[in-house]
Amino acid sequence: MSNLNGSQVVELDKKYNQHPWLKGNINPIAVEKADGIYFWDYDGKKYFDMSSQLVNVNLGYGNKAIIKAIQEQVEKLPYIAPAYAAAPKSELAAKLIEIAPKNMSKVFFTCGGSDANEAAINMARTVTGRSKIFSRYRSYHGSTLGSGNLSGDVRRFALENPAANGFVKFFDPYVYHENIKFENDAEASKYYIDKLREQLLYEGPANVAAIIVETITGANGVIIPPDGYLQGVRKLCDEYGMLMICDEVMAGFGRTGKMFAFENWDIEPDIISFAKGVTCGYVQLGGVIVNDKIAKYYEENVFLYGLTYSGHPLACAAGVACVNYYYEANILENVNKVGKVLGEILEELKVKHKCIGDVRYIGLFSAVELVKDKVTKEPLIPYGTDEKNIRGKIISLLNERGFATFGRENNINICPPLIITEEELREAMKIFDDVLTIVDNKFL
Amino acid sequence: MSNLNGSQVVELDKKYNQHPWLKGNINPIAVEKADGIYFWDYDGKKYFDMSSQLVNVNLGYGNKAIIKAIQEQVEKLPYIAPAYAAAPKSELAAKLIEIAPKNMSKVFFTCGGSDANEAAINMARTVTGRSKIFSRYRSYHGSTLGSGNLSGDVRRFALENPAANGFVKFFDPYVYHENIKFENDAEASKYYIDKLREQLLYEGPANVAAIIVETITGANGVIIPPDGYLQGVRKLCDEYGMLMICDEVMAGFGRTGKMFAFENWDIEPDIISFAKGVTCGYVQLGGVIVNDKIAKYYEENVFLYGLTYSGHPLACAAGVACVNYYYEANILENVNKVGKVLGEILEELKVKHKCIGDVRYIGLFSAVELVKDKVTKEPLIPYGTDEKNIRGKIISLLNERGFATFGRENNINICPPLIITEEELREAMKIFDDVLTIVDNKFL
Repeated sequence: MSNLNGSQVVELDKKYNQHPWLKGNINPIAVEKADGIYFWDYDGKKYFDMSSQLVNVNLGYGNKAIIKAIQEQVEKLPYIAPAYAAAPKSELAAKLIEIAPKNMSKVFFTCGGSDANEAAINMARTVTGRSKIFSRYRSYHGSTLGSGNLSGDVRRFALENPAANGFVKFFDPYVYHENIKFENDAEASKYYIDKLREQLLYEGPANVAAIIVETITGANGVIIPPDGYLQGVRKLCDEYGMLMICDEVMAGFGRTGKMFAFENWDIEPDIISFAKGVTCGYVQLGGVIVNDKIAKYYEENVFLYGLTYSGHPLACAAGVACVNYYYEANILENVNKVGKVLGEILEELKVKHKCIGDVRYIGLFSAVELVKDKVTKEPLIPYGTDEKNIRGKIISLLNERGFATFGRENNINICPPLIITEEELREAMKIFDDVLTIVDNKFL
Repeated sequence: MSNLNGSQVVELDKKYNQHPWLKGNINPIAVEKADGIYFWDYDGKKYFDMSSQLVNVNLGYGNKAIIKAIQEQVEKLPYIAPAYAAAPKSELAAKLIEIAPKNMSKVFFTCGGSDANEAAINMARTVTGRSKIFSRYRSYHGSTLGSGNLSGDVRRFALENPAANGFVKFFDPYVYHENIKFENDAEASKYYIDKLREQLLYEGPANVAAIIVETITGANGVIIPPDGYLQGVRKLCDEYGMLMICDEVMAGFGRTGKMFAFENWDIEPDIISFAKGVTCGYVQLGGVIVNDKIAKYYEENVFLYGLTYSGHPLACAAGVACVNYYYEANILENVNKVGKVLGEILEELKVKHKCIGDVRYIGLFSAVELVKDKVTKEPLIPYGTDEKNIRGKIISLLNERGFATFGRENNINICPPLIITEEELREAMKIFDDVLTIVDNKFL
């Protein structure tokens, strides 16, 4: 165990660590320990973890079942090469197939979401023999060359020197910002599916291997599709022989009140990519769950993809304990119960604060969209720029008051651990309310 | 801890797991436990781990220091988002910079080798503003879209539908198979560097961001560069303003008798990618170590790359214990001592067996190249095909006798854990000797 004190941790970090998505000279908060929905810095300051870190520590910290599984597995067999079978890998794969839709039959494990989506692209292109992959502008699927070019948000620009071929972007069902006024979900879904079909025709559907969607757009603003939309994507895929890939990296594992987010619309994807909530970050893990047709294809053909750490026994042991815990502790019940309260609070805040344009929530997955003007919906922070660092300032105001979360563009994400109680949620959201008052008064 | 028995582990694995680089219907060996340089299946059969799994379990199994570090860290803080500082991440980064060459100044952590090489490509293109990356045909750098297109061996073909842009391949210093007879290392190096310079001119060096090499080609046959070769690559990079990236994923962390393989030729790369030996597989970890110029660039510019698990505290805690152990247990001394014996044994085997064309070794990193004919050097297994599954049969013969390793193409790798004793090595190599006699008699 490290003997460094807090200032040494920060000093060494600043000197020797490059952080992702940041400049190299940042001044990070050093975190000493964590428990439940809280973590502490070295000054003893306590933070509500209101984003479950990167929407991955779903079960919070200090989960005894996951800790015990890791402590035991590391003594027996922390690692074995992926060509071998190992109990945790067998057990977790069986468990995931048990909880996945009926058409799903095999699991391939990776280290995280980026390489899971890389595996999904690889499979889709190989199995269909087609090259193009459709994904959405307001999406994030990873930062390796394939998963990064798949991503739609500004983070992909770094991987476009040169861009990878065969990645086509389409628009999200971002109803709040649409100029058209839809009467209901069915009308909205029809509009977006018609536009998608039109674009597919222009690109040539016979060349399109797959459509990948974050089932619910995560980091880019928790955009919840209107009812009928995902069903429409599913139909298009069936019609043109394309695979439907649901990226459940962020939305999966109980976040929305269902184990997988697509269960909210009763569809069955062909490939599910997952990570984050499968181990709640205790050990890195990701992967893809594939349907019987794809599994069958790979009984006749070599799967040309690999990772030293695929099916890592320590990671899978953490996964088994974690997935079992969702059920044993009735986590979904808590998500639905406390999620209802979160929705009510967000609606109240929207009425109360000038700076809130929209609130979007499902289960304990939510985002608050900030505007300069509720009527014109002019964003508080224009897309792709934040010259005045407004978002950074808001995050700092929250942080100072012990409310830790992240935002992107014009959105602040609120996605607490799924074990949060109603009382804890109300206490934390009071802080959020106070900061929004400052935003109303100072930033508009 | 799993209650499955051996046949259940195999049954569930076959039913639910997709393995990398294999067909979906394989019959895997289920591994129950491991200790030191050995692992056991559920029938109690013991295997010498003569490849350190995928050349990553350098310190063998059951290392108490690494186990203890993991067991303690998981209770305190298994995970925190990469924007924060955490003691294990600070400590491991500081340690890596301490053992790296003097020009190195910062570390970026990833989950493994593929995403480490993706980070290296991203940095090289961004920092230089150039797009092309040079890498070698007999190389493997990963299987994500970027690291896969960087790879030269047949495994990249799966990622060429469509191929990514800007990846240029050049030949390795594969002296054994060269038609030219070189008098000495200097002459060989001059030949390869001259050819590389010629190819750079044809591609336009002003468009080339970096040259990446496995310092010593690993899975593709442990091709050890002649003295002067890497120094020549370094000079070319300096001359044309390109970055030199050494992929030390397999060759690093003591494998060659030095902590980093490039120390054998006294050069300083601009970026080092690493994984495997940094944690010996106990927890997944990889990353890049970058020089002061690159670190400086990212003090002024945002590093546009990220992973949820970057700087994972549990992984970094394993890394701290692991890297310290190399020094505390004088691992390099053992590598050099036992490596000398390995070299002697391999030279004896080469004389004794008709099927051995070449043996290549440095430290405990070695490969045996199989031929049909020692004089013509005709490969026992032609490149890119193995219709008769000869390599598979040889690996099976070894496996049956408790000698576990892997091979690629025409090579069988022998890369035991760095803690192996001379006695253990001699016992294992006796099995190898016996199997080569079968190969001599049956497969030529």
